[in-house]
Amino acid sequence: MYSFAPEKSTGPLLALLLAVLILSPATFSHAQTEDPLPAWNDGSNKRAIIDFVTTTTTEGHGNFIPPTKRIAVFDNDGTLWSEQPLYFQALYIFDRIRELAPDHPEWQQTEPFASVLKGDHESALSGGTQALLKMAMATHAGVTAAEFSESVADWLATARHPDTGAPYTAMVFQPMLELLDYLRANDYKTFIVSGGGIDFLRVFAEEVYGIPPEQVVGSSLKAKYEERNGTPAIIKIAEVDFIDDKAGKPVGIHYHIGRRPVIAVGNSDGDFEMLEWTAAGEAPRLSMLVHHDDQDREWSYDRESHIGRLVRGLDEGPGRGWKIISMKEDWKRIFP
Amino acid sequence: MYSFAPEKSTGPLLALLLAVLILSPATFSHAQTEDPLPAWNDGSNKRAIIDFVTTTTTEGHGNFIPPTKRIAVFDNDGTLWSEQPLYFQALYIFDRIRELAPDHPEWQQTEPFASVLKGDHESALSGGTQALLKMAMATHAGVTAAEFSESVADWLATARHPDTGAPYTAMVFQPMLELLDYLRANDYKTFIVSGGGIDFLRVFAEEVYGIPPEQVVGSSLKAKYEERNGTPAIIKIAEVDFIDDKAGKPVGIHYHIGRRPVIAVGNSDGDFEMLEWTAAGEAPRLSMLVHHDDQDREWSYDRESHIGRLVRGLDEGPGRGWKIISMKEDWKRIFP
Repeated sequence: MYSFAPEKSTGPLLALLLAVLILSPATFSHAQTEDPLPAWNDGSNKRAIIDFVTTTTTEGHGNFIPPTKRIAVFDNDGTLWSEQPLYFQALYIFDRIRELAPDHPEWQQTEPFASVLKGDHESALSGGTQALLKMAMATHAGVTAAEFSESVADWLATARHPDTGAPYTAMVFQPMLELLDYLRANDYKTFIVSGGGIDFLRVFAEEVYGIPPEQVVGSSLKAKYEERNGTPAIIKIAEVDFIDDKAGKPVGIHYHIGRRPVIAVGNSDGDFEMLEWTAAGEAPRLSMLVHHDDQDREWSYDRESHIGRLVRGLDEGPGRGWKIISMKEDWKRIFP
Repeated sequence: MYSFAPEKSTGPLLALLLAVLILSPATFSHAQTEDPLPAWNDGSNKRAIIDFVTTTTTEGHGNFIPPTKRIAVFDNDGTLWSEQPLYFQALYIFDRIRELAPDHPEWQQTEPFASVLKGDHESALSGGTQALLKMAMATHAGVTAAEFSESVADWLATARHPDTGAPYTAMVFQPMLELLDYLRANDYKTFIVSGGGIDFLRVFAEEVYGIPPEQVVGSSLKAKYEERNGTPAIIKIAEVDFIDDKAGKPVGIHYHIGRRPVIAVGNSDGDFEMLEWTAAGEAPRLSMLVHHDDQDREWSYDRESHIGRLVRGLDEGPGRGWKIISMKEDWKRIFP
């Protein structure tokens, strides 16, 4: 057993002072000198992030932002997890159509359902947003919010990605998980602002990203409150409430968050307005786009892609001071 | 300079142990034995609140709720601040109509505006919700969200209540401010869920109640994102997006929060469904109604009132286990 004491008999008082120093919170916090973003390669983007977070959280610095205003928004598909060969929610919809098909014999002759049941996803999606919305409503509406969540949770637990064979929730980006943690450790409040369905995202966002349901913004169907089987329930109905994409993203941010973000991260032109709205605020602001340029470890696509198309962001982003994150160059590791 | 060395005397070791005890966080937190709700009289309601918060935050207790699920929702008008002789937002609308009247000569001949300009608020409101919505749209839409906030902030800074002569933000209920603080100190996340306008509430909710914009749920107009004067802006448009009242409240909670509250507090039948939805969750839940029964210190009204009518809540609430808070009996003080 050892005790700490000055050599001569200067006594218990000094031991006490020493203990105060050892135990003080300041001592603990200064010990955090380890790399907060280990899956990021050293480079200008990583340095820009750390510099931004450090200066905006340092009292007295010209960039300082009070904690209540530290709002960071993240797109989901292609930004926090993969989105190829199709948005994962579309794959859920296809699986759900196959599951529900026995109760809907008319789907065998009705597009886009008939194509899904034949396994022809490309034809099913050839009708664009309208076809996707039709399928979303057929699979998401008429049930209670609790039943819908349960169905998504069951699917996430068992479904596997067609190419990687991994659970979808394992196809999240490790560098982004680190960034989310790093921001929260610095009193940033992290939000998802996605074109995907708000109720779909909420099923896994808390467990996978540490983002609670009340910090998820997304597209939504209308809902109503009424009794079902003798208890009050929220029923999802087959009518679009809000599409949280493109110019809808700043509007979704306005409805749900009510103030302009400080940090915005996306990966496609669907995020352009969100980054633009963020960057148009008084400095300091940080807008970033994830560029999918790593064919070996994930996928490589931008200008010509049917999913996550990125043209305007690449052309105008750098001139606007937005950071383009190269998955190939900036990320040491892609998946956890 | 001092060095550390083992020593025979037990003195310094005891000093160190003492320092550890004195400095340990447990010692600090156990020191909080003061009354968290000093403006509440001792009684069954105060005891029920403290008991609920204590047991739901005590690990190992059968009522324990993990921090992420600790959601508490509060109505605003009549629950957090007064609502007589009219919802304060209606008084803002009337003032704003008078302010904008020179640009709208047609209002002199158009109801409900003409009545407002004659100072006849009763006639202006005789058209019910439709008349109020018409006036809300005329005064809330066509401007940017930032302009609207500024207008409300200016009004709150200068307008005075017709009866008390106090600023509206001084007519908040001290016992409720204490309850909000007490809940947050116990890791409850506090939300407003109001029939009032979400953008109106957000102007003062953070400063007055400690509730940030992203934790405000309310009625809303639609909005769009577009350039105005060369910069991107959120424009409020003259179309109702959502009415957050009665059966709309559980739906608003679903859209914005995405999970069922644990605590719900209201004061009128407009809050009935919110309390019902909260109470229908698995135990433990706490639903409470503020009863305006103090004519001397505030107002006294319930079953017959044109504002904040409370009938079903009084008839059915107690049988459902909801607490009826008597402003007269339960509150030592009303205003701060």
